[in-house]
Amino acid sequence: MAGTDTSQPLIPADMPLAPVVILVRPQLGENIGMCARAMLNCGVTELRIVKPRDGWPNDDAIAAASGAIDVLNNAKLYETTAEAVADLEYVLATTARMRDMVKPVMTADAAARDVHHRHHGRSTANCGIMFGPERSGLENDDVAFADAILNIPLNPGFSSLNLAQAVLLACYSWLCCDNPFPPAAAPAPQDGDNSAPATRGEIDNMLKYLEADLDERGFFRSAPQRPTLLRNIRNFFFRAAPTSQEVRTLHGIFVALRGRRRGNAPENDA
Amino acid sequence: MAGTDTSQPLIPADMPLAPVVILVRPQLGENIGMCARAMLNCGVTELRIVKPRDGWPNDDAIAAASGAIDVLNNAKLYETTAEAVADLEYVLATTARMRDMVKPVMTADAAARDVHHRHHGRSTANCGIMFGPERSGLENDDVAFADAILNIPLNPGFSSLNLAQAVLLACYSWLCCDNPFPPAAAPAPQDGDNSAPATRGEIDNMLKYLEADLDERGFFRSAPQRPTLLRNIRNFFFRAAPTSQEVRTLHGIFVALRGRRRGNAPENDA
Repeated sequence: MAGTDTSQPLIPADMPLAPVVILVRPQLGENIGMCARAMLNCGVTELRIVKPRDGWPNDDAIAAASGAIDVLNNAKLYETTAEAVADLEYVLATTARMRDMVKPVMTADAAARDVHHRHHGRSTANCGIMFGPERSGLENDDVAFADAILNIPLNPGFSSLNLAQAVLLACYSWLCCDNPFPPAAAPAPQDGDNSAPATRGEIDNMLKYLEADLDERGFFRSAPQRPTLLRNIRNFFFRAAPTSQEVRTLHGIFVALRGRRRGNAPENDA
Repeated sequence: MAGTDTSQPLIPADMPLAPVVILVRPQLGENIGMCARAMLNCGVTELRIVKPRDGWPNDDAIAAASGAIDVLNNAKLYETTAEAVADLEYVLATTARMRDMVKPVMTADAAARDVHHRHHGRSTANCGIMFGPERSGLENDDVAFADAILNIPLNPGFSSLNLAQAVLLACYSWLCCDNPFPPAAAPAPQDGDNSAPATRGEIDNMLKYLEADLDERGFFRSAPQRPTLLRNIRNFFFRAAPTSQEVRTLHGIFVALRGRRRGNAPENDA
């Protein structure tokens, strides 16, 4: 989906405080880049990386980030999970496999609400979400640093997510919980604008001409049928909610059809 | 995230009726494969493809699908958007760019609720979601086939999503609207299980021993302080909600510490 508004700052000033994303021993640079992109899509910018397999910085990461370079440039590197979470007060571990460990399990939605709640009134992030290596996921020794398990409920017969997609769903859940971005909308139509909705009167006026033409062409074969048919026609055009321009186009169509029919004297006249 | 349960069927029998995913002129086979994977993650299985640039079938798609082969094998191919949506009653177009067209704009969440509502009581999907080519998105002539625009509200300064990620968010929004899959949970602890929560009595018993030892070691320096300190200690251990096993471990730690201290006669005795 294209559509980034380049007039907007890369990171809006009024973003709520986002959780830190911690990638533990990620394998492919490409995946790290895609994670950065997914994070920034959701306004999440603080990335920490524990022992990336292929070293750092990583050209594949930059290529895959599709412009989320600031996230990569500001990423912090750590040797251990312990160091990466040392300043955090609350850490979630994403895993689909349930461990023999006693931790609360939260859906991405519930975890997102929890993070919002814990960040309330804070000026720096105290919550983080850990993601494990692509192949194996987090190890039990990593999960031991977490307060809770973040679980994304998916099709149990096919729940294996790409690393960047797991990051995207966790970050999107966080964003949706208190989304500061209104959905994009078509510009509100102005008076006289072609895209302004037609008034009831404009539609009714068109229908009056149509009705007269249909009477003239013998469309209403039986008098008792006439009011019902007219009501159905009116219902359809009101429900269709045409714009002023569309009403003019429809009127033009009806005039043209009547004209052509008159000229051509069609066989299947109705 | 690893964790697919291979004992589960690939597509659960009790899935609600999912929308059809329509990829219009997708460019890279790899992206088609990743879309299939994202769909199946969310239990969405019906894929339609309009004029894929690199032909069909496509080896890159199969490689990127990570096992979502059934979705690809059952995908239907079309020459035009008109043909791909011909049997549908309701079509959403995903786009981040708002067009000069009069269509309702819905968030992914609202669109998901709408699809659930329209599918209620149906046996075959009558709703579809269209996604455009990677580079350019849907053309206006494609969007003209849609009833409404599906807009995913993201960081306006960086809203460009990978095709598979757009498919993932749309499908995940649909799944979350009426998610039949309970979040994974740790197995419920059994009586006598190491992971069973300790009873209040087990914790209190441990604390009684601790209290006696602390008295013996002169921990409570002032008598008036004693009840408050004890209450704080009890509050901490009750809030920590240890398992039975953890209570035994803690008890062992206290015994060991007391033993070592007695043996070593430490200087900083408290």
